[in-house]
Amino acid sequence: MKRVSAKACSNVALLKYWGRTDNKLRLPANNSISVNLTNLISQTSIEEADGDEVIIDNQIQKGKAKERVVKFLDLAGGKGRVKCKVVSKNSFPKSTGMSSSASGFAALAGAVNKFFKLGLDERELSILARKGSGSACRSVPGGWVRWNAGSGDKSSLAETIFPKDHWELVILAVVVSDKVKEVATSKGHELAQTSPYFKARLAIINSREKEMIRAIEKKDFDFLGELGEREMFEFHAIVMTQKPGLFYWYPGTVEVVHKMRQMRRKGTKVFCTINTGHNVFVFCLPRYKKAVLAELKKLGCVQEVIENQVGGGVKIVI
Amino acid sequence: MKRVSAKACSNVALLKYWGRTDNKLRLPANNSISVNLTNLISQTSIEEADGDEVIIDNQIQKGKAKERVVKFLDLAGGKGRVKCKVVSKNSFPKSTGMSSSASGFAALAGAVNKFFKLGLDERELSILARKGSGSACRSVPGGWVRWNAGSGDKSSLAETIFPKDHWELVILAVVVSDKVKEVATSKGHELAQTSPYFKARLAIINSREKEMIRAIEKKDFDFLGELGEREMFEFHAIVMTQKPGLFYWYPGTVEVVHKMRQMRRKGTKVFCTINTGHNVFVFCLPRYKKAVLAELKKLGCVQEVIENQVGGGVKIVI
Repeated sequence: MKRVSAKACSNVALLKYWGRTDNKLRLPANNSISVNLTNLISQTSIEEADGDEVIIDNQIQKGKAKERVVKFLDLAGGKGRVKCKVVSKNSFPKSTGMSSSASGFAALAGAVNKFFKLGLDERELSILARKGSGSACRSVPGGWVRWNAGSGDKSSLAETIFPKDHWELVILAVVVSDKVKEVATSKGHELAQTSPYFKARLAIINSREKEMIRAIEKKDFDFLGELGEREMFEFHAIVMTQKPGLFYWYPGTVEVVHKMRQMRRKGTKVFCTINTGHNVFVFCLPRYKKAVLAELKKLGCVQEVIENQVGGGVKIVI
Repeated sequence: MKRVSAKACSNVALLKYWGRTDNKLRLPANNSISVNLTNLISQTSIEEADGDEVIIDNQIQKGKAKERVVKFLDLAGGKGRVKCKVVSKNSFPKSTGMSSSASGFAALAGAVNKFFKLGLDERELSILARKGSGSACRSVPGGWVRWNAGSGDKSSLAETIFPKDHWELVILAVVVSDKVKEVATSKGHELAQTSPYFKARLAIINSREKEMIRAIEKKDFDFLGELGEREMFEFHAIVMTQKPGLFYWYPGTVEVVHKMRQMRRKGTKVFCTINTGHNVFVFCLPRYKKAVLAELKKLGCVQEVIENQVGGGVKIVI
């Protein structure tokens, strides 16, 4: 079998995934909603090799990082599979809260589907990607995506709820540092339920989800912004209060959040959200992009801004 | 009646007061625990005048700030009271999360007690101070203080649980900005119950309180630090998730918190807490003070550090 390459977008959740009901299968504690991001891309190739080898961003992976990929290959290709060389490149810094594992495992799932001739459809591919990294299941379909938590392996998958051209939005990935975060997302998930607030969070997720879908459907930016910001704080409140508490934010994270809140109060159609990391995702209507970029660039903490639109699903490129 | 002056320390809570069951009487939703701070001082004087006049930090107060003090004087001195000039000075920046209203109203309560010849004992004075500013009731008694939420006006008061010389600790008030906060604490309290996590917080306060008292009693710094930091995050999680969400932290706040967490992980006996504001309170054992100060001074965000020990109660000075 020849080398196969696939590309996938990273995604950013507006309704966050945090906590699992099954750590091995990566079944989430709640539904989540995200958008794919056109310019946060992982390209991943797979080819036959003498032994399993995993290279991410030009670095040969060892230990747990390698194991995670090898286990995924075993899952996809079965025990008798050929040994493989997997090479993945991200167009953006990894382990900084920009979900490179989502785009990485979605691309890998796409590549192995062809490489091992699995013949999986989009729903099945989403299920497979989920087992590599939970949020990777959301990078398989395109556009605005909803991950149904489901009741088991077969029903926990992500689907497009609105196509990528449903609503023209700008999503700025604001890099305040490319330093790798101290605690991996995957580890954090396992302790979500130790937050005293976790049950209260789960109790409101369903109504939040309905409101958010309505806001996206109606293209009601103000409402989506209000919900998105509230979700950001409620989600990080869990992260900070679990045991041990995780505190992902950097000084620059806080500076960007304050600036965007300030602009929003003054009428700019902008709001932000943060994944488990220190970098910030800023959503705005296209006509406000210039003003938002100008303000971001004035902040000393901002190292880089990657402009995105709502992106499509995973694609085979070779 | 001649001019009367009183002095009171500000206090910092390790078990936080947030949310009320009665806004007018300032009855808190939960018990809280604090220490008085020797070098965050308000000195407040009262004397007869032709009309009510309130001067804080050399500024003549108008509108709501003046009204709050005038209402307090009415409460203490009765409707037929003489008109008064109240002059208050803080040794530290006000409205930045360092509880100048606690020390200010405690000092004022002490002064009016003598000025109006009320003859209140410490418990009664704590009740009176509470009606000016909730946390002021904790600045009336000395040392380590517990505010019993109580079931009504007469039972909601603060008392010393350990004297100020019980445990020699250093408490550094770290000023990252003297900018006035956007939303006053008093306003924030009223909306605490709009956080989806508020009930869950109240449900754990009692066990937290017991643990904290045990940690102080046994002078178990590690345990107190763990509880204190957890409480800081759980408290700010409520503040951020109420409606509208309040986000008091500055970039510098986050920088100080990370640095102190890092030092703690490496064995330094240090931890921090934050009130409703951006400045940070750092607790450490005396033998670590030098090292902690050295690290704080390296941070560009730190404007000033005010060193404190555990302070005493309100005192008449003239």
